[in-house]
Amino acid sequence: MIPNLTPDVELAARLFDMLRERSFDGTGITREAYGPGERMAHALVREAATGLGLEVAADPIGNLHMTLPGTDRSARRVVLGSHLDSVRHGGNFDGAAGVLAGLAAVAGMVRAGFTPSRDVTVMAIRAEEAGAWFPTSYPGSRAALGMLKAEELEIRRMDSGRTLGEHMREEGFDPDFAARGEKVLGPENVAAFLEVHIEQGPVLEAEEIPIGIVTGIPGSRRLRAGRVLGEYNHSGGTPRKYRRDAAIALADLAVALDEAWCRLEAQGHRMVCTFCTMGTTPEAGFTKIPGEAIFQLDVRSVNLHSCDALFEVLYAKVAEIEARRGVRFELGTDSGSRPSLMDEDVQRGLKRAAETLGVPHLAMPSGGGHDAAAFAQAGVPSGMLFVRNQHGSHNPKEDMRMEDFAAACAVVSRFVAEATQ
Amino acid sequence: MIPNLTPDVELAARLFDMLRERSFDGTGITREAYGPGERMAHALVREAATGLGLEVAADPIGNLHMTLPGTDRSARRVVLGSHLDSVRHGGNFDGAAGVLAGLAAVAGMVRAGFTPSRDVTVMAIRAEEAGAWFPTSYPGSRAALGMLKAEELEIRRMDSGRTLGEHMREEGFDPDFAARGEKVLGPENVAAFLEVHIEQGPVLEAEEIPIGIVTGIPGSRRLRAGRVLGEYNHSGGTPRKYRRDAAIALADLAVALDEAWCRLEAQGHRMVCTFCTMGTTPEAGFTKIPGEAIFQLDVRSVNLHSCDALFEVLYAKVAEIEARRGVRFELGTDSGSRPSLMDEDVQRGLKRAAETLGVPHLAMPSGGGHDAAAFAQAGVPSGMLFVRNQHGSHNPKEDMRMEDFAAACAVVSRFVAEATQ
Repeated sequence: MIPNLTPDVELAARLFDMLRERSFDGTGITREAYGPGERMAHALVREAATGLGLEVAADPIGNLHMTLPGTDRSARRVVLGSHLDSVRHGGNFDGAAGVLAGLAAVAGMVRAGFTPSRDVTVMAIRAEEAGAWFPTSYPGSRAALGMLKAEELEIRRMDSGRTLGEHMREEGFDPDFAARGEKVLGPENVAAFLEVHIEQGPVLEAEEIPIGIVTGIPGSRRLRAGRVLGEYNHSGGTPRKYRRDAAIALADLAVALDEAWCRLEAQGHRMVCTFCTMGTTPEAGFTKIPGEAIFQLDVRSVNLHSCDALFEVLYAKVAEIEARRGVRFELGTDSGSRPSLMDEDVQRGLKRAAETLGVPHLAMPSGGGHDAAAFAQAGVPSGMLFVRNQHGSHNPKEDMRMEDFAAACAVVSRFVAEATQ
Repeated sequence: MIPNLTPDVELAARLFDMLRERSFDGTGITREAYGPGERMAHALVREAATGLGLEVAADPIGNLHMTLPGTDRSARRVVLGSHLDSVRHGGNFDGAAGVLAGLAAVAGMVRAGFTPSRDVTVMAIRAEEAGAWFPTSYPGSRAALGMLKAEELEIRRMDSGRTLGEHMREEGFDPDFAARGEKVLGPENVAAFLEVHIEQGPVLEAEEIPIGIVTGIPGSRRLRAGRVLGEYNHSGGTPRKYRRDAAIALADLAVALDEAWCRLEAQGHRMVCTFCTMGTTPEAGFTKIPGEAIFQLDVRSVNLHSCDALFEVLYAKVAEIEARRGVRFELGTDSGSRPSLMDEDVQRGLKRAAETLGVPHLAMPSGGGHDAAAFAQAGVPSGMLFVRNQHGSHNPKEDMRMEDFAAACAVVSRFVAEATQ
């Protein structure tokens, strides 16, 4: 018989308010990774966990572990976590929702006097917002899992110019732990990792469903510095056949890939394809034919074969457009990441919990990357629960309804209760 | 019997060298309209004309008229002219070639002791490079023709911030003359206006033909501040059907107009269509779907119906793309100009001269605008002769072979000799 635990959503609501109050920058929310904003958030969450009587400890790279001890302390634990840093001028929920959902669930257990069969740890992870601070993926969770490479400690924070290792040390932590490849978590001591996160996309809102059970975190193939080189010429004096127009060549490629994406989806591929930036360069101007254009391409799918299929079209179209338009493409480095599938058992457990509670849910791939990807790559059975949100994320208008968050917390509580009964 | 006059190309070559020497800015050629560069060029040309014994006079707005008197001083004159200003960091030949071709032809007449039946005036026109200095078309020639509007004297030079009228006055001229709508030239005293100019495009070079006989100066329809408004969203988390991608919508439009241009040309339209600038705005970035894109469109044809036909496609595609992609286009002001057809008799005269001299030639529309457009609009029978050139114009690499220039001068001499025998 699984106990019916009620998460302490009011605690989470108070903490959301305090986080917002203490990290509002005048425009949005800013919680710098290994900086004042993240430091404040960790202190706040640590205080709340101490108030709940949890065992609280930071690991050597600064992730915070807040543990409700289980009856069998040597059994593999359940970890509920996400990150507390934010992008600059971001929203209050991206990351924090996962930490506070974990705290709400554990606070509910404490309130009910429930002792789990195994440890349940709420984990506040460091430095997940790679695009904002350290240009590498999930350094906090990967360091905890022993997967951060020593050279990544030399990556510099975009605003301060100081390295990840320097920032860790400034906050009182020990980058050498990561450099030595030591770890605090892995499949040997974690039975399941569960991350609650706002969706960041519009699907749940459009489908009117409060939570999503994530099937996987997509891999990607990316061109971050694509160029098209043609020839600047007078726009009035250069007939069609003498043109080497870089911008129209790029438009050709963009439309061709958009059409290919459409075709591939019709064939069952599930993916996204975005020219995030594209256009002429400052040398362009009125009455000139563009001699150069630049672009950034982001292709993602939970199934890397889908990304590859689109890149096959890309290569074919590039050759065709080069021949037809007298331009030259420089695609630059093709960077990317492998997809991380969420654990089938965890997905089933979440689905069961949602159905028991009558919470409408949708199986869906993640759009962005998350710490759960690092746990999955490390071999920890991992899952994610998306909460319906409004206005995307990484902007001050990012929003989430507390009743949807409460539904997610209830599913987490039920899932943990089943996993630790 | 038309006399066989040899133009003094050596004089022109010396003047080209002196112009270059005195207006090289370290990168290219800069001759500011109503500024030091143009002033220097006018002084140099005036000195050469005086040396040839021509009647030399500046008109009240600063155009320089250098006249070889004809036997009948009351007959309508032939004017050979172009401009002496250049863009910043431009080339030595754009504009100057037309003034020096006129001087070479007249110097040849002086050397041969030939007295024309009517006055032949070499005209150095002010301020043709509208894109570089005063954002209005041909203020120098239009003022000479009584077509400059009083309010255009208030247009400010882009670099100095002072008005056209102020600059005229600083150079010792009288903007009130233009404000009163007075004129020095018109169909009543000009039999023909002929402008030699470098082609600025690649056609003559590619076709291996030294000179072009211009059929007309195109009109245009232009969107200088087009925008596409969509919605910024997470590039990973937003499936296709929830996207409002402004950049791919713009790419769609660009490709559609390029295809329409292709079709219209196959149907006999002769035109050009250029997205001079296009792309995402600085708000765009990696992992975002572009919520805004901007563009500048330049459509030109000697036949305005061709421009209109393409704009019909534009309006239809905009509506279709808006509906399909959930974006909104803001086309902004549709600015443009009327085409100016070159005089049939002048074209025939130039063709006859070229054929007599065995100079290969090609009938072709102009790409850019020229002072000859103002003369044609004023009702003066006008013509243009293009000289094959290399590396376009408006850049330091702009080039022209002196043997091609000599061929153009020979055709001008022959044409003038026939017109004034």
